[in-house]
Amino acid sequence: MARKPTGESVLARAVRIFEAFTPEEPVLQVSEIARRTGLHLATASRLVAELAAHGLLARDDDRRVRIGVRLWELALRASPTATLRDTAMPFMEDVHAVVGHHVQLGVLDGDEVIFLERLSAPKGVINYTRIAGRLPLHASSSGLVLLAHGPADLRDRILAAPMQAYTANTITTSARLRRALADIRKQGFAWCPGHIHEEALGVAVPVRDARGTVVAALSVIVPNTAESRAVTGILMTAARGVTRSLPPSPLIH
Amino acid sequence: MARKPTGESVLARAVRIFEAFTPEEPVLQVSEIARRTGLHLATASRLVAELAAHGLLARDDDRRVRIGVRLWELALRASPTATLRDTAMPFMEDVHAVVGHHVQLGVLDGDEVIFLERLSAPKGVINYTRIAGRLPLHASSSGLVLLAHGPADLRDRILAAPMQAYTANTITTSARLRRALADIRKQGFAWCPGHIHEEALGVAVPVRDARGTVVAALSVIVPNTAESRAVTGILMTAARGVTRSLPPSPLIH
Repeated sequence: MARKPTGESVLARAVRIFEAFTPEEPVLQVSEIARRTGLHLATASRLVAELAAHGLLARDDDRRVRIGVRLWELALRASPTATLRDTAMPFMEDVHAVVGHHVQLGVLDGDEVIFLERLSAPKGVINYTRIAGRLPLHASSSGLVLLAHGPADLRDRILAAPMQAYTANTITTSARLRRALADIRKQGFAWCPGHIHEEALGVAVPVRDARGTVVAALSVIVPNTAESRAVTGILMTAARGVTRSLPPSPLIH
Repeated sequence: MARKPTGESVLARAVRIFEAFTPEEPVLQVSEIARRTGLHLATASRLVAELAAHGLLARDDDRRVRIGVRLWELALRASPTATLRDTAMPFMEDVHAVVGHHVQLGVLDGDEVIFLERLSAPKGVINYTRIAGRLPLHASSSGLVLLAHGPADLRDRILAAPMQAYTANTITTSARLRRALADIRKQGFAWCPGHIHEEALGVAVPVRDARGTVVAALSVIVPNTAESRAVTGILMTAARGVTRSLPPSPLIH
């Protein structure tokens, strides 16, 4: 990665430092942070020290660096999606109790779906999502639901862009995507057998607010077998419960 | 609030802007942000614009400002407490299914307990905690458990400091706190009837990692009645399950 011009703002550099941490590597040495961000070691070291002083990063005795609890706290306590998540949670637990496997709540962010919450069974089928994880809209059942009900310009953009194949079943052509979106609007759910992993079936339904606007996708990832047919009705029922329980004020994410 | 000297760093100002948002007021006008942070309107406006450009804040059409999904994502996806939370979650769901009411997971942060997760029943008894919410250690059952097993210097500091009373039952003297902590270490749980609210009973047990170190408190908030006796055994059993399921690497928060 090229070193950035020195005119870059402190905030931009701080964001790049936060971005250096991943679910797979939540703990980094300062030298590794410098390498990943393209910052000089002295600059990275000074910024890490300042971010740690504010609690946004945390350093242990071995000077290894992590995301700080304070950053987590600031992001969570006034989270714009907290109401949606808290309202959906009991209904997600109900689905989880009945279906098992993975239950997740996703919202649109940019050109992707981001997952706000996930309940998982220890022996659940393979699943690529995690909390705060993202997936492309064309690939996941949640993404397809959000795209089917999303703004027209977003749909045009995704239809025109290349679509990454995860398996032989992933939607990768604009013709097939257009048909899938029409089906989802007509049927009220997205049914994605083996689109991301051969053995997994993703099923998603829209969650609407009181005005009928789709604000989220509720989904399950279950084994890709015929017995999984029943999940659609369960999801639709749960999504209606979330809608009824959502406060009337508009949700923004 | 007094205006800060202009020498204050951009990061310090950004943190103060994040701190202006609360669970009760997650949406603010820029003028209100300026007022709460003590920043000049022009300074607040410029910083909000830059934070929004990075997705750390979000502005809607009415120029109202919120915490951005990107901040939430950066804090969550490499969260130092994600493993603890994800491991505890199925056991919290079990407790929630059996006990109902509120089930929560708290960890020590500074001189307070911070709640990483909470499952709530729609008709649960009154509860002051929320996700990313904090409570003083002397007042809450989770705090007492974490204090009982925490570092000696923390215990000395809390014992020497004034203790805020929430009800007539809150522990407010060092003699009573010292006795309570000894009881918790002996019995293996904290039992706090009406300590924060007259009608609520908080019960908490320690969650240990594989090496026996207490890394969290698992708690319920139930009605303050005799029938609630049974929760202690349920919590202790669930906490052992979390311990057994935690990965061997040390958890840091």
